[in-house]
Amino acid sequence: MSITLLNAGWIIPMAAGTGTLEKHSLVMDDQRIAAVLPWAQAAALYPGAEVVELREHVLIPGLINSHTHSAMSLLRGVADDVPLMDWLQNHIWPLEKQWVSEDWTYQGSLLSAAEALRGGVTYLNDMYFFPTAMARAAIDSGIRAGVSINVIDFPTGYAAGPDDYIAKGLAAYGQFKGEALLDWTSAPHAPYTVSDETFIKLRELAEKHDLQMHCHIHETQHEVDESLKQFGMRPLARLDKLGLLNERMIAVHMVHLDEEEIPMLARNGVHLVHNPNSNLKLASGIAPVTALEAAGVNTILGTDGAASNNRQDMFGEIRAAALLAKGVTQNATTVSARTALEMATIRAAKAMGRGDDLGSLEVGKLADVVAVSLAALECRPVYNPEAQLVYVAGREHVSDVWVNGRRVLKGRELTTIDQGALLDRTEAIVAAMKAGA
Amino acid sequence: MSITLLNAGWIIPMAAGTGTLEKHSLVMDDQRIAAVLPWAQAAALYPGAEVVELREHVLIPGLINSHTHSAMSLLRGVADDVPLMDWLQNHIWPLEKQWVSEDWTYQGSLLSAAEALRGGVTYLNDMYFFPTAMARAAIDSGIRAGVSINVIDFPTGYAAGPDDYIAKGLAAYGQFKGEALLDWTSAPHAPYTVSDETFIKLRELAEKHDLQMHCHIHETQHEVDESLKQFGMRPLARLDKLGLLNERMIAVHMVHLDEEEIPMLARNGVHLVHNPNSNLKLASGIAPVTALEAAGVNTILGTDGAASNNRQDMFGEIRAAALLAKGVTQNATTVSARTALEMATIRAAKAMGRGDDLGSLEVGKLADVVAVSLAALECRPVYNPEAQLVYVAGREHVSDVWVNGRRVLKGRELTTIDQGALLDRTEAIVAAMKAGA
Repeated sequence: MSITLLNAGWIIPMAAGTGTLEKHSLVMDDQRIAAVLPWAQAAALYPGAEVVELREHVLIPGLINSHTHSAMSLLRGVADDVPLMDWLQNHIWPLEKQWVSEDWTYQGSLLSAAEALRGGVTYLNDMYFFPTAMARAAIDSGIRAGVSINVIDFPTGYAAGPDDYIAKGLAAYGQFKGEALLDWTSAPHAPYTVSDETFIKLRELAEKHDLQMHCHIHETQHEVDESLKQFGMRPLARLDKLGLLNERMIAVHMVHLDEEEIPMLARNGVHLVHNPNSNLKLASGIAPVTALEAAGVNTILGTDGAASNNRQDMFGEIRAAALLAKGVTQNATTVSARTALEMATIRAAKAMGRGDDLGSLEVGKLADVVAVSLAALECRPVYNPEAQLVYVAGREHVSDVWVNGRRVLKGRELTTIDQGALLDRTEAIVAAMKAGA
Repeated sequence: MSITLLNAGWIIPMAAGTGTLEKHSLVMDDQRIAAVLPWAQAAALYPGAEVVELREHVLIPGLINSHTHSAMSLLRGVADDVPLMDWLQNHIWPLEKQWVSEDWTYQGSLLSAAEALRGGVTYLNDMYFFPTAMARAAIDSGIRAGVSINVIDFPTGYAAGPDDYIAKGLAAYGQFKGEALLDWTSAPHAPYTVSDETFIKLRELAEKHDLQMHCHIHETQHEVDESLKQFGMRPLARLDKLGLLNERMIAVHMVHLDEEEIPMLARNGVHLVHNPNSNLKLASGIAPVTALEAAGVNTILGTDGAASNNRQDMFGEIRAAALLAKGVTQNATTVSARTALEMATIRAAKAMGRGDDLGSLEVGKLADVVAVSLAALECRPVYNPEAQLVYVAGREHVSDVWVNGRRVLKGRELTTIDQGALLDRTEAIVAAMKAGA
């Protein structure tokens, strides 16, 4: 038994009904949380424990990035100030077709994992080709990941067609089964790139293996309009007809929703990933988060990939979610700091089907823990630590991160990754891409 | 003569028609820029110069925060998730009435100056009580400031009424005349707090002393509605009638504008300070930046005070300006990275009447220079340094800052301020406020 006490200035457990605890210790017993107690009590109960002093820090549950394409860090900034369809068809897809490989995906995913951990993110819900590469990057970096059995209905350097994507995804799933850090999703890319037949296969795959699903839906008005032309119905109606709108579904973007769709999502228990900065940057629009909240939809947060949100920064998404909703509705009380934090922690854990183990600092849960220092002068004074995390602190104030009880970031240094060697490898890949472009 | 060479990986001078220079040196001769040359040429021409190696860095002109209330860093986070009028009337004004003093203002302003410099901001256009305190904080920290001769038509701990505000402001202006780091503005608080008579006095004061003006205008729909009731016209029409809408006017917020007002602002040469994050947080709305750009209005950027934008972070405002405009108009090409950077540099210098001396890295201009490191893994790879500054880098990547040729930040350490002592003083003030609340 290995006991560690994290003696924090503040702990925000993010469990229902809990606020902010002052001068408490989080007690970790190997990979799980054993107790949350006042400093003196913890010291008395665990005299031989390893102690980490974090007296100017707030402890929060590890942040969950509910939607990203980790490998795309290699395409960070390759095409800015361009709209979605132009960006996809003329920039991203041609580059991916030319370059994406198992190694490219591994190195890019490892770069994103490193960025995530340095920014307090302990879980990446990923969607990309070569899931074995993401699985290896997660295990090697020590981050938790939702790895995708992903399908897009056209051939890529990864797979020849839908059945090949599914076969490769299932092989990866089999290969890594039982890995503590990995969850798996059944991940059709989007209604505009996946046929009815493939959607049904992926639904059945999710049911058979008890997996969550992960799909881009209603990202742009263009997508909705094209679906009306092609299928005579909006994408959500089509997915509903195919039996896909239920508690397994993690629906990404959902910018364009009508008045009937919002209560329907709530009724069906669909989880909705809001990607505020990506949706702004690609000019897709702004998801109606205040209306979604009123309807009771489980709205959570993601960055999207680094090619459309060049900063893979969940602190930025949390802040943007809280601010944007206020500005758009001209209601300063909507999406409070607390709500925005829930979207990146406990609510996201529930969406991944991991609410019993992750998303809050409660006894018995896995120890995915982030320490944020409020010592820097730009974080002073502190009136309310919860609001300070949302409106003041940035990912640069994250000092230490534990995933599954393992300290993967220590005083801002990654313990699992050789940063210099990683950058040497990714810069070499990018140099080859630039030379070949 | 003291020559310093800053050998940068990239220099983005932000002068008209210039792009990004690779492997160039910025040559500083005391407080001015003497040359911008390729590394080898600079080394040959200035053999005895002091050399600062910044090979993984981008050099940009110092960022200009065109609207803030520096002292309000002491109220950072005191009232979040509250709308503007409630926030002002029930939280901010009562606290200010009880606590604001010369020393309170000085310590809060110094805290903001420290935060600004650590974030690449070299110029704070401030509006607050006790201008002598802001003037001293700017001089002591080495930051440049626009100090306000400010007036609000009700008594505060600072002044008894309009004439007293003006007299105190003018006395401060006289006391600090000739200080290299200071500009002064004639600063009526807002149309809803200042009478016609006072507006005219402040216009005359600006004309007499050749000062720019600084005023909150059209921040909320409520302000516009109340003006229609009280004056039978919108605030902008009232200010136009009073002769205030011209190239001296730095108009702050301007969230609510009708179709006739936008071309009128362009015609009159009014400068408009967009405060994207503050306007979102207080639920005031979103200024129509794309329409303002199309009309040719000189739109620039500010944070607003730390009580309404808890993060005094111009990198955040630049990014928000570029992203928000895209999302709101569903046009991914509006407010490019370049445009957003101009709003925080050359355009802002022009608004302050300092376009000849500040805002770009050109020979003969004053050396307000910021070095941003792109070495961290979250800033890699680099395809386009200009876009990287806007969409990727954060204020935490600022390594060094020069103001007027003086190195005020060196390897992220302030050279002018004892951070520990400053925090001891500000924390003592805040402790007293909490005890007295």
